[in-house]
Amino acid sequence: MDAAQEAQRREAFRHLVLNALERRLFFIPSFKIYRGVAGLYDYGPPGCAVKANVLAFWRQHFVLEENMLEVDCPCVTPEVVLKASGHVDKFTDLMVKDEKTGACYRADHLLKDYCKEKLEKDPRLSEEKVAELKHVLAVLDDLSSEELGAKIKEYGITAPDTKNSLSDPYPFNLMFQTSIGPSGASTGYMRPETAQGIFVNFKDLYYYNGNKLPFAAAQIGQAFRNEISPRQGLLRVREFTLAEIEHFVDPDDKSHPKFAEVSKLEFLMFPREDQVSGRQARRIVIGEAVSQGIVNNETLGYFIGRVYLFLTLLGIDKDRLRFRQHLANEMAHYAADCWDAEIECSYGWIECVGIADRSAYDLHAHTDKSGVELVAHEKYAEPKEVEKLVITPIKKELGLAFKGNQKMVVEALLSMEEKEAMELKATLEEKLEAEFSVCTLDKVVTIKKNMVSISKEIKKEHQRTFTPSVIEPSFGIGRIIYCLYEHSFYTRASKDGDELLNVFRFPPLVAPIKCTVFPLVQNQQYEDVAKSIARSLTAVGISYKIDITGTSIGKRYARTDELGVPFAITVDSTTSVTVRERDSKQQIRVDVDKVASLMKEVTDGVSTWPDVLWKYPTHSS
Amino acid sequence: MDAAQEAQRREAFRHLVLNALERRLFFIPSFKIYRGVAGLYDYGPPGCAVKANVLAFWRQHFVLEENMLEVDCPCVTPEVVLKASGHVDKFTDLMVKDEKTGACYRADHLLKDYCKEKLEKDPRLSEEKVAELKHVLAVLDDLSSEELGAKIKEYGITAPDTKNSLSDPYPFNLMFQTSIGPSGASTGYMRPETAQGIFVNFKDLYYYNGNKLPFAAAQIGQAFRNEISPRQGLLRVREFTLAEIEHFVDPDDKSHPKFAEVSKLEFLMFPREDQVSGRQARRIVIGEAVSQGIVNNETLGYFIGRVYLFLTLLGIDKDRLRFRQHLANEMAHYAADCWDAEIECSYGWIECVGIADRSAYDLHAHTDKSGVELVAHEKYAEPKEVEKLVITPIKKELGLAFKGNQKMVVEALLSMEEKEAMELKATLEEKLEAEFSVCTLDKVVTIKKNMVSISKEIKKEHQRTFTPSVIEPSFGIGRIIYCLYEHSFYTRASKDGDELLNVFRFPPLVAPIKCTVFPLVQNQQYEDVAKSIARSLTAVGISYKIDITGTSIGKRYARTDELGVPFAITVDSTTSVTVRERDSKQQIRVDVDKVASLMKEVTDGVSTWPDVLWKYPTHSS
Repeated sequence: MDAAQEAQRREAFRHLVLNALERRLFFIPSFKIYRGVAGLYDYGPPGCAVKANVLAFWRQHFVLEENMLEVDCPCVTPEVVLKASGHVDKFTDLMVKDEKTGACYRADHLLKDYCKEKLEKDPRLSEEKVAELKHVLAVLDDLSSEELGAKIKEYGITAPDTKNSLSDPYPFNLMFQTSIGPSGASTGYMRPETAQGIFVNFKDLYYYNGNKLPFAAAQIGQAFRNEISPRQGLLRVREFTLAEIEHFVDPDDKSHPKFAEVSKLEFLMFPREDQVSGRQARRIVIGEAVSQGIVNNETLGYFIGRVYLFLTLLGIDKDRLRFRQHLANEMAHYAADCWDAEIECSYGWIECVGIADRSAYDLHAHTDKSGVELVAHEKYAEPKEVEKLVITPIKKELGLAFKGNQKMVVEALLSMEEKEAMELKATLEEKLEAEFSVCTLDKVVTIKKNMVSISKEIKKEHQRTFTPSVIEPSFGIGRIIYCLYEHSFYTRASKDGDELLNVFRFPPLVAPIKCTVFPLVQNQQYEDVAKSIARSLTAVGISYKIDITGTSIGKRYARTDELGVPFAITVDSTTSVTVRERDSKQQIRVDVDKVASLMKEVTDGVSTWPDVLWKYPTHSS
Repeated sequence: MDAAQEAQRREAFRHLVLNALERRLFFIPSFKIYRGVAGLYDYGPPGCAVKANVLAFWRQHFVLEENMLEVDCPCVTPEVVLKASGHVDKFTDLMVKDEKTGACYRADHLLKDYCKEKLEKDPRLSEEKVAELKHVLAVLDDLSSEELGAKIKEYGITAPDTKNSLSDPYPFNLMFQTSIGPSGASTGYMRPETAQGIFVNFKDLYYYNGNKLPFAAAQIGQAFRNEISPRQGLLRVREFTLAEIEHFVDPDDKSHPKFAEVSKLEFLMFPREDQVSGRQARRIVIGEAVSQGIVNNETLGYFIGRVYLFLTLLGIDKDRLRFRQHLANEMAHYAADCWDAEIECSYGWIECVGIADRSAYDLHAHTDKSGVELVAHEKYAEPKEVEKLVITPIKKELGLAFKGNQKMVVEALLSMEEKEAMELKATLEEKLEAEFSVCTLDKVVTIKKNMVSISKEIKKEHQRTFTPSVIEPSFGIGRIIYCLYEHSFYTRASKDGDELLNVFRFPPLVAPIKCTVFPLVQNQQYEDVAKSIARSLTAVGISYKIDITGTSIGKRYARTDELGVPFAITVDSTTSVTVRERDSKQQIRVDVDKVASLMKEVTDGVSTWPDVLWKYPTHSS
C-alpha cells in the first residue's frame, strides 16, 4: 500500500470509529444546538463512564500503589504563579492574521499545509525543491518567529479562506485570561497544567510526608489551552483532563526502591540516537535502557515501566505504543531527560503521556518568586566538617563610601558565588581594590580591600539542604481515551452476513457498562427475574443496562457490542441464565442467584473469561 | 446560654476544627506561598481522599442506583448559552465602591454588618429603632438596588477600611469572563453551574434513553463564582465542585415508581407555612408531606428522601439536617416548588443541596434561543381528535395596512395564546376592529376584521408534544464536606489525661485512609509482616498508612485519629495482629492472612464493627 492509500485507509477507519462514537454519545460536540465551539467536546453517558473507569484505575495503579499524596487545586490561578512558572511569557504559539478580515491562523500550520500540499500535488517540483520542503517540515518546530515569517513571505502563502495577505507572525498566549474579584485589578488565568498547584504546596507536602524524600504528589483535574485553531478533533482541544504526578527526589540519588518490579519489562523504545540516525523504534528491556544510560535514571525508568503497564492494562495495543525520547532541541533547557509515551492512531503517533525529569527548575522558580524556600534536608548521621565561604562586609567602610546605596552593595557582595568571591579576594589582595558590578544599582562600583573580608572556614554541618529534583509523568486523559477507542474498535459480519457490525473490545475494567440483562422473550416471569438480577448487580456496584423491549436478541447484542459491553445476561429460564462474552460470543449457563457475583468477579479482574469458561456448562444457542 | 455565649462557643469550636483541618492538610489556602487568593482553597491529601470518597458514593447512590445518564461538559461556556439561561443578565450581586480607593464591597453585607453591630453594641437604641433594624435584616435579600442605596445613605454607612463615602449600588456579574479563541471576538464564561451542559444536550440524551420519559442526567464538575468579597471560609468560595441531577419528567405526571422506597422516612422539614408563622422545623414523614401537598409532587419528594439518605449515610447528623422550603419571594418565578437541604454548623444553617422543580423553564429558554425544539413526545394508543386553534393572517390586507411592518404584525398574531386569540376574535366580530399590541414594534396597532381569520378546528393527533419539566437536585460538594468535618469532629482526653486529642469520627465510607499498619516495636520481623499486610491491602484496594517509626503506639493512634482513620492494625506477633476501632477503642485479634479481607469487609460496608466484634477474640492492651 502506498502512502496515499494508507492515508485514505486511516481516514476511512477514523470516520467509522468517530461515527460510532458520536452516534452512541461517547462524545458530543459541546453546545451543539448553538452550533458548538471548536475544540470543546462533552463526554456523553458511555464516554463519561469510560473516563470515570480510566481515572479510577489511574488512582489505583499510581496513587494507591505508590502511596502518593493526591491534591486538588483550583483551575483559576493568579498571574504571579504562572509568571514564576514561565507560562505568562512563554506559553505561546506563533499566530498570523489575515490583514483584511483579522482571522487568525497558526503560522506553523499554514507553512506545514503549504509544504505538504506542494509535495503531494505538484509533480513538477525539482529535486532540490522537494528536499527543501522536506527540510522545512523536519525543522518546523524549531523555526523562530522571524524564520517562519520569512518562509511565509518567500512561498507567498496567503490566508486560506480569503487569499488575503498575512501579518508577520507574533506570539499569542494560549492561556484563557480572566479577572479575579470585582476590581479588575487582579489578573488570573485558567491553569494550563495542574502541576503548579503541587509545586507551590511543596513545603506543606514535604512536611506531611514526615520531611522525607522521595515522595510523589498527584493531581487529576481540568486544564485549559486557548488554541488558535483547534484541529485533530478529540486530540487537540481547548479544555481537557490531566492526571499529573510530581515525584520529588534527591538529585544525588535517583534510584527507585521498586525498580526491580518493572526492570524486566520489554517494549518499544525510540532513543534519541536512533531517531537522529534514522532508525526505527525497537524493543528494549527497560532495566537495560537504564543500566546502559539510555534512560537517565532509575526513577524515570520506573515510571516509564509503570506507564507501559497502565496503558496496556487499559487496552492499548502494545505494538502501537512506543516511548520516544525528546531530542535535545525539543527539551526544555533545564530538563535532564524526557520520554513521551506515544500511541499510534489514525492521526499518526500521538503524545499521550510525557515523562520528564524536570530537575529542580520548578521549585527554584517558585522559591525565587515567592521568597519561600522550597527545599529538603538530609540529616547527616554524624556532623560533617565542610569548608564554607564566609563573606563579611565591613559596613562602616561601605557606609562611608556608598551612603544610601550601601544596602544594595552589601546584598550584592553576600550573594556572590564561591568562584566570583575568590576572584574578588585575589584581586583585592593584589591590587587593593576591584571593580564590582551591582545589578540592583545597574552600575559598576569600586570595592576597596578594607570594605569586605572574604575567607574560607571549616564549619560543622548537621544536615545538607538542597532543592529536590522533580520527575513528572503527565497524562492527557482524553487523548489516551481516544486512542483506546481506536485500538478497541473492530467490525464483524452479522449472523446473516448482510451487515457489518461495530464492536468495541474494551476490557471489563474500562467498559462503560459491564453487562446487559435481557429477557429472551417478553413475559412477566422473565422480566421479574431480569429485574431481580438488576437489583443484585446494583448492590455489588456493577453497572448494567436492562432491555425489556421485544427486539430480537441478535439486535440487542449488536447494540450493546457497539457500546463495548463485555457480557450479556439473557434470561431464558427462571432458575438459570445464559451469559455471553462479547468478542468470542461464547456462552455459559449460570444460576440466577450466582450471576451477580460472577459478574463482579470477571469485571474486578479476579477472574478472566477463560478462567470461568471451564467452570460452567457451555451453552450453544 | 445566651446568644453571645453561644456565638462564642460556636466560634471556638470552629477554630478548633479549622486548626486540625489545616494542620493535617485537609485543606490548604491556594497559592499560600504567594499569600493566597481569597475564596480559593486546595484539598490536601486527606481532604482530596474524602472528596473522592464522597463523589464515588454519590455516583453509586444516585447515578448507578437510578441508571442516570452521566455527562461531562467543559467549564468554558460561550456567551449565547448563558444568555439563554439568564446568567449574563441576572447572575449578579449588588456592589458598592469606595469612592476614593475603588475598593469593592457587597452592598447587602455592609448594611447587614451595620444593623448587626448596632443591635449588638448600641445599648441606647430606641425600641422603634431596634424593630426597624431587625426588619431591615429580615428583608435584606428582597431589597432592590435603590432601596439598598437609600438605606446605606440614610444610615451614613461608609467604606469599612477607609471611612470614605460609597457609590450607589450597582449589579456586578459573578461569572469569570474570558475570551474563546485568538480574535477576542467570542466572549466566554467559566460556567456558574453544570446544569446548562445537560439542558443543551436534552435532545441527544432523550434519544439515548430510547425517547422515553422520565429519565435523569447527572454531572459532576467544577463551577465558578467570582465573589465580590468571599467570607465564611470554606463555605463561600470562588471555585467549587457541583454534582447536579436533572430529572426530566412529564409535567402531567410527576409520580415516581420508586417513591414507596422512601415514603416512610421521617426527618426534619420546614415548610413555607411554618416559617411564615414563626414555627420551628418539625419531623414529618415524607410520604405524608407529599400526600398533604406540602411537597409539590412525588418525584420531588423521592429526591428529598434520597438526599436525606445520602447525607446521613455520609455521616451528617440527622438532628442537624433539615429540608427547608423556599418562601414565595425566594423562588424563581418559574419554579413549581423548591426545598433546600440545610445543615447546621458553626456558621448557622447552611444550604448544601437545592432540590427544585424548575418546571419547563430551562428547556423553553434554550428552545427559544437556539431554535432547536427541546421537547418530548407521547404516542397515543389511538389517534385523538383535538380542538386546535387556527390563526390565518390575511397577508394582502395586512400588507396594505402595515407595509414594512407587516412581518412583525403577522408574527405577533401567530404567537397569540388561545385566550388572547379568542378575545381578539370576539372583539373583531362585535366591533369589526381591535387594538392590538405588537411588542417587536413597541406599539399598539389597529387590526380590522378582514385582516385575520381565527377559528378552532378539530384535528387528529397521533402524539402529544410537550416540554418536559425538570426536577433538579444540586449538591454543593465542598459545603457538604465542610459540614461533615464539623459533625465528625470531637475531642477526648489522652490516656494520661493531660491533653485533649482531636478525633474525626468519619464512617469508613468517607474516611480518607481506611486503616493504619503499625509494628508494635521496631524489629525486622514485625516490619516484614507489616509490609506484607500493606501489600495485601493494596491488592484489595484499601488505602492505608504504614508507620514504622519508633513513636509510641499511643502517639501513633492519636495522629491517625485526627485524620479520621477508622481502624488501626498493630503488628505484635508474626501470626496475628491487633485491630483497634477508632471511636470505641475496642480491640480484636485477627490472623495476619485474614486482616486485609476483614478490612475490605468493614470498609465496603458488608459488615459493621459490632458485626465483627463478636466473631473475633477481643484484646485488651
